[in-house]
Amino acid sequence: MKIALDAMGGDRAPQVVVAGAVAAAREGVEVLLVGDEAQVRAELARWGADLPVWHAPDHIRMEEAATEVRRRPQASVRVAMELLKRGEVQAVVSMGHSGATLAAALLVLGRLKGVERPALLVEFPSLRGRTFLLDGGANADCRPSFLVQFAVMGLAYAEASGVPNPKVGLLSIGEEEGKGNALVQEAYPLLEAALGERFFGNVEGRDIFLGTTEVVVTDGFTGNVALKLAEGEAKVLLTWIKEALASSFRARLGALLVREAFARVKARVDPAQYGAMPLLGVEGAVFIGHGSADALAVKNALLRAKALVGAGLLQRVRERLLSLHV
Amino acid sequence: MKIALDAMGGDRAPQVVVAGAVAAAREGVEVLLVGDEAQVRAELARWGADLPVWHAPDHIRMEEAATEVRRRPQASVRVAMELLKRGEVQAVVSMGHSGATLAAALLVLGRLKGVERPALLVEFPSLRGRTFLLDGGANADCRPSFLVQFAVMGLAYAEASGVPNPKVGLLSIGEEEGKGNALVQEAYPLLEAALGERFFGNVEGRDIFLGTTEVVVTDGFTGNVALKLAEGEAKVLLTWIKEALASSFRARLGALLVREAFARVKARVDPAQYGAMPLLGVEGAVFIGHGSADALAVKNALLRAKALVGAGLLQRVRERLLSLHV
Repeated sequence: MKIALDAMGGDRAPQVVVAGAVAAAREGVEVLLVGDEAQVRAELARWGADLPVWHAPDHIRMEEAATEVRRRPQASVRVAMELLKRGEVQAVVSMGHSGATLAAALLVLGRLKGVERPALLVEFPSLRGRTFLLDGGANADCRPSFLVQFAVMGLAYAEASGVPNPKVGLLSIGEEEGKGNALVQEAYPLLEAALGERFFGNVEGRDIFLGTTEVVVTDGFTGNVALKLAEGEAKVLLTWIKEALASSFRARLGALLVREAFARVKARVDPAQYGAMPLLGVEGAVFIGHGSADALAVKNALLRAKALVGAGLLQRVRERLLSLHV
Repeated sequence: MKIALDAMGGDRAPQVVVAGAVAAAREGVEVLLVGDEAQVRAELARWGADLPVWHAPDHIRMEEAATEVRRRPQASVRVAMELLKRGEVQAVVSMGHSGATLAAALLVLGRLKGVERPALLVEFPSLRGRTFLLDGGANADCRPSFLVQFAVMGLAYAEASGVPNPKVGLLSIGEEEGKGNALVQEAYPLLEAALGERFFGNVEGRDIFLGTTEVVVTDGFTGNVALKLAEGEAKVLLTWIKEALASSFRARLGALLVREAFARVKARVDPAQYGAMPLLGVEGAVFIGHGSADALAVKNALLRAKALVGAGLLQRVRERLLSLHV
């Protein structure tokens, strides 16, 4: 299985991206780097690595409009999607412009049958393991039917991730049916009808970290706010703890002893561990990461893409969508 | 200054509520307990305290509909609002049914001039102090004009809290103007026109904890999800840290030394420290707390209500709203 990586995508591309690719290749991932060949080869040389490179002379910069993809056939992210469509690779990973990656996927690959809008799936660590939330930000405004499709894709993803018997919660601001905004109130009966006992009902913000349900659906606005709030809170809490541990001689002494235990908690909430978010609902396995990703995040994104494609992610999503329309 | 406390509101009322009232009274707050006199007096007797009680034979239970307030004039929360309207108290605090408290405030006190919908203000701890977010959940669906009124009330609140030169951020999923959902895109130019340089522009989820702006406005759905997500994440992170600190002999030894430093971080993210959320936009100072509040939260709610009313909160909100319509 080969994975195309947009070598030019991300705040510190191609340096960080190539570094992550080299690390992943050393762990057995077959990576095809898509980007400016001279620049990518120069980075590879720094690592003494010889990965295959597919030349793409252009790329979409972070500050450009996502729609640029339409008129830039030589842009790295678009070339990567073409390789996926032709079957030369089995997945695409990009840490670049997420809007442009989404646009390129829609343009080149198209949507899966039964999907009105593709969605980003975000993983949160939870008390009971992991919570898969979608949409993480692909669709700021959603219709109720989108949420049903997100739920079905989320279930397929949870199954491909090895979760037995996953359930879906509808993110709201009150547990009872009827609580929430207009979107949630309309989506509730649709989810109930489509998912049967796989639908848990409403969940609240706190349930994401408590892990009340394995899958949580919401619109891409709320989902993206939740994702970034959670990252910001983890960062600030850990900063305060670090400060507290340096605040007295006694605390500094204790800090030496708890350092290791602490590092484990930190790793648990580090966004880099997840690497990239799968874009579900397009005709191909596409993973979109943070522009600020470091080499570890790139490596993890590639490892995760390999595992999920190996577990038949796309086929599972397709089948679940079909069962929805029987 | 006298504060009416709904003695029957909350999951563990009147016990916990009376305990909090007694603690606040010992710190100089003049509390009037509104509720079933026999029950409240029995609780007061347990503390050997003699606070004034205003008898209200009825109360709205947590599982009842908020609209019950309309046909239950003897309900404690409604009686408390009547006392506020008549000027017998200067503020109302309730840890009970938040929908019912909102309904009672609207029914008895009415809205401030210039306000279409009142909003709940939530405090988040931040790297730079505190972030005031509204709406925390009073209005699941909002129109763009509501967000402008929330912003103005948030500025007045920040000023009453002693924040110099506060700025307002519009919660979105991208920093540039034009990013976000339809509500945000429509609200942006309205905020710019109404607030001038007090408007910072869009902020993202992470900015709430980073403290990029002192005030953040959003719809009550997103705001309530953010509030509960933040509480859930803090709880889960602290659980993991506690587990990590007990995971080895070395860590347990270190934990003894860092315990105090740690307690300070924990207190910083404890929702009980804020006690209750002010309901801004009604003709009176109303504070609504968690149904699950403990005695510390009730005490802090009363102390906070006293401080804010003393700082002329209501007058400041009124004046800022007027300046909006000049």
